[in-house]
Order: sequence, then structure tokens, then C-alpha cells
Amino acid sequence: MALHSINELQKHFENALGLVEFSDRPTELYDPVDYILKLKGKRARPVCTLASCEMFGGNYKAAINQAIAVEIFHNFTLVHDDIMDQAPLRRGKETVHKKWDTNTGILSGDAMMILAYQYLQKASNDKIQSLLSSFNRTAIKVCEGQQWDMNFETSTNVSMDDYLSMIKQKTAVLLGEALRLGAIMANADEESQHLIYDFGKDFGIAFQIQDDILDLYGDPEKFGKSPGGDILAGKKSYLYVKAMERAPKMLKEELNQTYYSADLKAPQKIEKVKSIFDELDIKSRAKAEMNRYYLSAGIALNTIEIPENQKLVLKEFAEGLMVREI
Amino acid sequence: MALHSINELQKHFENALGLVEFSDRPTELYDPVDYILKLKGKRARPVCTLASCEMFGGNYKAAINQAIAVEIFHNFTLVHDDIMDQAPLRRGKETVHKKWDTNTGILSGDAMMILAYQYLQKASNDKIQSLLSSFNRTAIKVCEGQQWDMNFETSTNVSMDDYLSMIKQKTAVLLGEALRLGAIMANADEESQHLIYDFGKDFGIAFQIQDDILDLYGDPEKFGKSPGGDILAGKKSYLYVKAMERAPKMLKEELNQTYYSADLKAPQKIEKVKSIFDELDIKSRAKAEMNRYYLSAGIALNTIEIPENQKLVLKEFAEGLMVREI
Repeated sequence: MALHSINELQKHFENALGLVEFSDRPTELYDPVDYILKLKGKRARPVCTLASCEMFGGNYKAAINQAIAVEIFHNFTLVHDDIMDQAPLRRGKETVHKKWDTNTGILSGDAMMILAYQYLQKASNDKIQSLLSSFNRTAIKVCEGQQWDMNFETSTNVSMDDYLSMIKQKTAVLLGEALRLGAIMANADEESQHLIYDFGKDFGIAFQIQDDILDLYGDPEKFGKSPGGDILAGKKSYLYVKAMERAPKMLKEELNQTYYSADLKAPQKIEKVKSIFDELDIKSRAKAEMNRYYLSAGIALNTIEIPENQKLVLKEFAEGLMVREI
Repeated sequence: MALHSINELQKHFENALGLVEFSDRPTELYDPVDYILKLKGKRARPVCTLASCEMFGGNYKAAINQAIAVEIFHNFTLVHDDIMDQAPLRRGKETVHKKWDTNTGILSGDAMMILAYQYLQKASNDKIQSLLSSFNRTAIKVCEGQQWDMNFETSTNVSMDDYLSMIKQKTAVLLGEALRLGAIMANADEESQHLIYDFGKDFGIAFQIQDDILDLYGDPEKFGKSPGGDILAGKKSYLYVKAMERAPKMLKEELNQTYYSADLKAPQKIEKVKSIFDELDIKSRAKAEMNRYYLSAGIALNTIEIPENQKLVLKEFAEGLMVREI
């Protein structure tokens, strides 16, 4: 039987999520849940759950509840992170705490976490222990990652190890987890569960580094935003952390003065930081690191002992998310 | 074998909780978890889990992880509720968001919910489905209860049904749940699980009504706080809602003017509200309602088909929490 394509899985997922009724009483609690879940994103995580389930020989329907769980959990983290980061917009729309208020954001987020567990547990008795252990381990890492990210904002000394560990926990492990849940639902063996998790985790890190590269070097027409947002926000991105690692003392000071200058105008600041990055050859080093993680993800996927043609859907999905022209 | 007394169970619980290591990295995330869990309260919920397990023939140790789960979950709700209510103190100490900050409170609370699930799932495969379904159903009700409570703050029209439904969801169901988890761990049948849950839920409502009565009519020397706190906070307590239900139109207006007056000094405000309550015979009506729920709880406990002597520990615990002299 041919596996479903990513597009098909995306459609099936949207349909399934559309059937979920979140609009129970009190509406003040459930309207925000409905709102954030309907701000359609790529649905990368739940689609990974479904694709992983099919790759290991299951039908996507067997993992649909776990896919919903992953998407609700992910959206719970968005709602709470947006409060902590005081972000006004999410996917171009008002964030929950802006559209309603902070209390609503906190409580709706809490409810979403419980809803995620309600969907996660929709499985036979022999799978629940495995689903829960796996999910809980990842969920707590996601919280830890968010804490590291917040710590970095006020820290003057973020090492590359710290940075990689943060993005791994904050974003990459949930992608790995999404895939692992699909594997569990398809009765994949433990070794395969482990490998598909590693694939997702390493791919997630590669994707995050790419994100940091694109923020400065991406084609504005293609990505719909002007470059250098991370610099203007003073974000300790991969590029910044790498530059701080490589720069000699004097240049390090210059970089920091520029990066956190309150006087420089936006275009000048971006230009100056970029020239320091260029001097240190940061872009190509970031690309090299991104490629290392991408390669490592590929190795994990290759090592899984199932027919290669069953891996094609996920492989193409991953390839499609990586941008060639940077 | 004699069952353990409440005091013994309390000690065993403290010991077990003391052995739990929450102080992992990042410390910014786990220090608050450690802090709130060490502000020793009565531990009523986890002790109920243990006592229920023993009542149904198990040893308390069989339910210790579920007791820890309930206590961590309860404390998660305290941390987030204190943010939403902007409360500075909890059990006489600084609240988490005051001692640290709001973001820390949000994220540590989130981590606690995940930790609660980690302890909840420590059970054999045949019990997990039951534990999770039961717990999730209650957890979502607790969130809904908190939302109703917040809604009431700005609502001018809270009915007695609304009020009872709110305290049931916000506090009483978790007591019922604590007991039910213990019953599940002791392999009690479904009818018994249901009855012990009802016992806890109805007792919880009685206890909450008692709390509202004591706030105004309690002996200050005995309860260590001056009476009338709810009135000064403008809280829609049982007494206020009952008075609004019973008062004729004119008196209703007078009560509201007094209750929400910004000009009246504290003692005058309390005195005036109290005289309106007396006119409407509110105290004895509140006591009657409290007794109805207490009686209903007792009936549920009596209906459970196990030897009466096995019920004594829980019965005495409940009796001990009810105040005779109000």
C-alpha cells in the first residue's frame, strides 16, 4: 500500500482537529484554545507523528489522537511562552494574552496541557505506559529549554554548548517526540523508536540553526520579513554566540557594544554586526554546523531497519524544510 | 491489620515527598517547585489518597506515587492561581511569583503539572488508563472552576447554583479525586470508586461553605485572623450570594452599596454587612447547607460495601476538619 503524502496527512490532520470540540463552557476558558489551534501553522509536529506511524507500517489513523496531543501541547507552550516573552503577535495574529488577557492565557494554557494528556492516553493499555514515559520526559525538557532561553536573556556568557543545549530542549526534542509517538502507535521496536527520535531531534537543531541564519541572510522577498530581526531584538542567536566564541577580546567588545547599542539606527546596527560576522566567517560556519546536524539526522534515519521506500515521505518532508540557497 | 492513622499517613507522606529530588537544573525552574512543596500544609489531599487506599485494603505504599501526584498538581494550581489573583502570601510566606517573578511562576507551575503526571503514571499497565481518565477529567474541572471564580469577580449576578458549581469544581472535586486515586490503587470496584469520589466532593463543598462561615463568624483567637476578610476583599462568598438570593430589592441594593463601598471604614463595613446577614438569617442557612453536604458525604461513605471499621480513619479525619462551635 502506498503511504500517504505529507499534503494528504496535513489535510487529514486538519480534518481531525476540526472535529474536536473545544468550545465547551466556560467559554472564557475554551475560546482561546479554539482560537490558537485554528491559527493554522505548518502542523509539522502532528504530521510527523502521522508520517512516522505510516513509515513503521501503521495507518495514520492509529496515531491521530497522539498527533492531536502533540499539536495541543505545542500550542500550550506557544501561549505561555508568548506571555513570558510579551509577544504581541503569533502567526500574524494577536497572541492570546493580547486578545484576551494574561490570566486567560495562563489558564487556557493550563487547560490545553490537560487536553493534550487526554488525547495522548487514547490508546490501548499496553501502549500507555510507553507513550506517557516518552511524552513526559520530553515535555519537562521543553520547560527546561524555555527556562534556559529566559536565562540567556540576562546572561552575558552564553557558550555554544549552552546555546545548542537550549535549542535542543526548547524546540528539537518535541519534533523527535512527535515522531516517536507515531512509532510507538505503529508498534515499532525500541531501537527504531530511539532512532526516529534522534532523527527528529537532530533535524530540529539543524532547522533552528537555519532559522537563525535566514533571519539575517534570508531573501526578504521569499521570507516576507526584513533581515536582522534577531540583531535588533538583541537575541543571542547561533550567529551571535558563534561570533562571541570566535572573536578576539577587542572584537568581542566591539560586537557587544554594537549589538546592544541604544544609539545606533537599525540599518547601521545590522550592517556593522554583519561586517563583524563576515570578518569571523560566521555564516559559513553556521552552515557547516547546520549541515552536520542535518547529516546526523539522515544517518539516524538510514540506520532504521525498514525498507527504504517507506522512508521517502519523511525524507522528502525534511528536505523540503531545508532551504538550498543560503 | 490495623490501618495507619491520619497522623502516621501524614508523616509517611512527608517522608516520601522529602525523598523526591526536584532540585535539578536549571535551578531557576526547580527551586520554586521545591519551595512551594516544602511550605507544609495539612497535606489533606495526599493523605486522603493514602487513607482511601488503606480503607479499601491496600497498603498506603501502593498509592504513594499517586499521593505525590495529587499534591504536586494541587501546588501547581496554587502557584498559577496566586499569579492570577495577585496574591502576595501563601501559608504566611511569599508566593512564588513574588519571591521570584511572574514568568518563573508560570513556567515552574507548568513543570509541576508535568511532574504530577510523571508520578501519576507510576502504576501497572492495567491501572494507568483508569488513573489517567479519572485524573484528567478532574484536572480540567479544576481549571474550569478557577475560570468561573475569575468570572464571578466582575459579574454582578452570581446565583447560588453558580456559586456551588464553582466551589465544587475549583476545590471539591480534587479532594474526591485524591480519594478515588487511592481506591483505584487498592483495586476497589467501580461503584466504590464512584462513592468515595462523591464522599470527597460533597465533603469538600461542606468544608468550603464552613470556610466562608468561619471567615466572618469564626473565633479570631482560634483561627488567627480577624473576621470579615471576605467582605473587605469584596469576595462573592457563600454568605454574600445567599444574602443576594434572599434579600428583597431594596435590601439587595443596600447590601451591594455597603459591600462595595469605597468610603466605609473596615469595622463599619463589616458591622453593617453582618447586620444585613443577620436580618436575612444567613448564618443558620449557611450552616444548614453545610450540614446537608456533610450528611450527603456521610451517606456516600456509608453506602460503600466494606466493613465499617475500615472507614473509621477517614471518618475521623473528616469529623476533625469540621468545626463544632459555629
